Amino acid sequence: MTQPTAGYLSPETAPLFTDLYELRMMQAYYNQEHNPRATFSLFFRELPTKRGYMLTAGLEQAVHAIEQLSFGPRAIDYLSELGFGERFLEHLSDLEFTGDVWALPEGTPVFGNEPMLEVTAPILQGQLLETIVINQLGYQTLVATKAGRMRDVIDRQGDGQSLVDFGSRRSHGTDAGIKAARAAYVGGFDGTSNVAAGELFDVPVFGTMAHSWVQSFATERAAFETYLAEHGEETILLIDTYDTVAGAELAADVADEMGLEIRGVRLDSGDLPALSKAVDEVCELDQYISSGIDEYAIRDFFDRDGVATGFGPGTALVTSTDAPKVEGVYKLVAVERDGEMHPTMKLSTGKVTYPHAKRVHRIEENGQYVGDVIGLRVESLPGENLLEPVIEDGERVADLPSLETSRDRANERRSNLPAPHRRIDDPEPYAVEISDGLERATEELRRDLEAKA
Amino acid sequence: MTQPTAGYLSPETAPLFTDLYELRMMQAYYNQEHNPRATFSLFFRELPTKRGYMLTAGLEQAVHAIEQLSFGPRAIDYLSELGFGERFLEHLSDLEFTGDVWALPEGTPVFGNEPMLEVTAPILQGQLLETIVINQLGYQTLVATKAGRMRDVIDRQGDGQSLVDFGSRRSHGTDAGIKAARAAYVGGFDGTSNVAAGELFDVPVFGTMAHSWVQSFATERAAFETYLAEHGEETILLIDTYDTVAGAELAADVADEMGLEIRGVRLDSGDLPALSKAVDEVCELDQYISSGIDEYAIRDFFDRDGVATGFGPGTALVTSTDAPKVEGVYKLVAVERDGEMHPTMKLSTGKVTYPHAKRVHRIEENGQYVGDVIGLRVESLPGENLLEPVIEDGERVADLPSLETSRDRANERRSNLPAPHRRIDDPEPYAVEISDGLERATEELRRDLEAKA
Repeated sequence: MTQPTAGYLSPETAPLFTDLYELRMMQAYYNQEHNPRATFSLFFRELPTKRGYMLTAGLEQAVHAIEQLSFGPRAIDYLSELGFGERFLEHLSDLEFTGDVWALPEGTPVFGNEPMLEVTAPILQGQLLETIVINQLGYQTLVATKAGRMRDVIDRQGDGQSLVDFGSRRSHGTDAGIKAARAAYVGGFDGTSNVAAGELFDVPVFGTMAHSWVQSFATERAAFETYLAEHGEETILLIDTYDTVAGAELAADVADEMGLEIRGVRLDSGDLPALSKAVDEVCELDQYISSGIDEYAIRDFFDRDGVATGFGPGTALVTSTDAPKVEGVYKLVAVERDGEMHPTMKLSTGKVTYPHAKRVHRIEENGQYVGDVIGLRVESLPGENLLEPVIEDGERVADLPSLETSRDRANERRSNLPAPHRRIDDPEPYAVEISDGLERATEELRRDLEAKA
Repeated sequence: MTQPTAGYLSPETAPLFTDLYELRMMQAYYNQEHNPRATFSLFFRELPTKRGYMLTAGLEQAVHAIEQLSFGPRAIDYLSELGFGERFLEHLSDLEFTGDVWALPEGTPVFGNEPMLEVTAPILQGQLLETIVINQLGYQTLVATKAGRMRDVIDRQGDGQSLVDFGSRRSHGTDAGIKAARAAYVGGFDGTSNVAAGELFDVPVFGTMAHSWVQSFATERAAFETYLAEHGEETILLIDTYDTVAGAELAADVADEMGLEIRGVRLDSGDLPALSKAVDEVCELDQYISSGIDEYAIRDFFDRDGVATGFGPGTALVTSTDAPKVEGVYKLVAVERDGEMHPTMKLSTGKVTYPHAKRVHRIEENGQYVGDVIGLRVESLPGENLLEPVIEDGERVADLPSLETSRDRANERRSNLPAPHRRIDDPEPYAVEISDGLERATEELRRDLEAKA
């Protein structure tokens, strides 16, 4: 009988999570003895639809991918099958990262063209990282942002309601499920239903009950009684299997009869603001709201005076449904030639990039961010410098913050953005300027390249 | 120095990819001695936006999750930390799947309310599978469908152009990257750039070169010459770094001078149909087109007489950008009571489900599908029965097909759908009926439940 394949990555196959062209270029860099030092810059060109800012997340996983970079026998064997040469594969099996990495700390608002990560290393090494670092930073940033938007609506209109990620079944694969739980926590969530994310990242885990529990008993009463017998005061009863308001009354009755103060009830269908008010009239239990929850639904819920202690967003969070992509790119911005770093850029239509290693400076006035300046790394400019060295010569030079620290940072830095940039529809664009030095360098290089072409 | 965490699942943590409530219910089923045999049905209620059909994929990974279900010491330790009881955890550490699984083969068009997978097992086991089987079937189905739509446009308007997945950097995490490569292949792609997907699933891998290669040389000519020196006739040169048409001329010149017939050139920016025609006028090289490719862009490309040998869709494929979610659910449809299976359903507003284990029958006329009937599993109805037993009493009873077989099936079954259902905008709804038997059983149960409430 054939064995099915899970197809999860393992430490043996993880280095193969890359595009074939990276490895083909690496082999060519190696065999053709063209391995100059190079700087790559990871950024996105523009904010996704409806986004006034993005909140960075995923640096820890990007750093892991860089530090643990290692091709073992299984990876080498497969590359040999694909036709890669023995001499290159020997080099690859000894490869480790020896370069520098600068990065924005997780939980930092970031805008178009601002580097989130810069890698300076022999080009062969820097090239390899492209696929995995874009992948890990891009997705977590997408989810942290979505989470931050929901937390922001609650900060504005709510009363500190809890937010718990219920999205794992609808995430794009398992890695997304656990990374969404992590990134949502950074962005301001309180926890996740995903147990693996709890184990791997220490994200607090929460759980209630499903309709199947209720349906598996002859009566809703028997279902509630049995669940309470097991879980006692920890229980959150799901009340919409048959009739939400009747379910609420029953939940309150059963809890009363058993002498338990349960944690609350969950509503998962129907007109949630209206039902939550109806439930509030028949019982005093805390209400947790799920089904189709996102920042727009939460705003509508508050606008219509819904009553809730917490929300459980799922699909919309983990797929970032209204903006499911952020087009992170990882571009060569400088390369060594004759012993010096030279700027580089492409001129492709609509895809022009700024050359040189950079810094991002953020200007604050009265505790509010008023604008950023993207400058050359060697320029000295006013404002807080956001990019920090993380790895130098292959050695880590900064501790990675705990998830709590990143979460606190995200919360503070998000709040420092003036409210108009945080609107969930039609946010006001935040001012990002290019420094005079970078502008000049870009124009100069463009003229050079056009003259050559 | 703190160690960063990759946070990949491993065989030790994979069983924890579930929602906490599944485990809390399982403990309650176990401790409260309520572990009846139950049937769960996995389906989606409606087709996502713009979709006239979905193409199933991911069954192999769902079967793996079911067959390999096993809680080792690391998982048990964590659950103990979370407060699960010792007696339940002992039971869990011995748990293996002993039930039945019926499923639609990969590569089958599927519509709203049609079961893709049905699990019949002690409820404790069936419950646990919910999160992982929805996750694995849902995402791969989303991508196989997106892929099928692109292949369909080429079948209609093109000339057998190749389709290669270039999306790994923008997929939602790494699992999505490799599963997208697999699912796209099922849906009609020719391969992927993702090397790990090649290793894990034998999907053919392809790669060209990046702008960074070109930029890392003092001139585009030097970059092309060096790449050709390494890769010879296998080479596809990227020609849009500075000026696409000039790049095409240079590519042709360099290949000529070196006496090589290279595989072609890649265009990655600008007005692609127009540029491809301009390139075609200056050289005879095969053209591979990337950047923003999806079914709509391919249609537009053909409508405008673009010239291409192949396309490399990326972000739009792996995030299914225009329809990034399919809301798979896994519902309890029958449960054993007093030694017999009883139907079950919920009445939640807008979320009513059909009870009972089911079959899906597909009616074919002159090689074209004309409609489906969803019936009770025990009903005998005309048309091809699509759901097949895969596991019985915990043992596999059917070989899983190779990826090639699933791909061929998808291609054939997609083509059997009349064209109006395959339109990429505004597809005509396909007829899905509920059998008289299922309709009667549903009404009867609804009356019973409403009488009880």
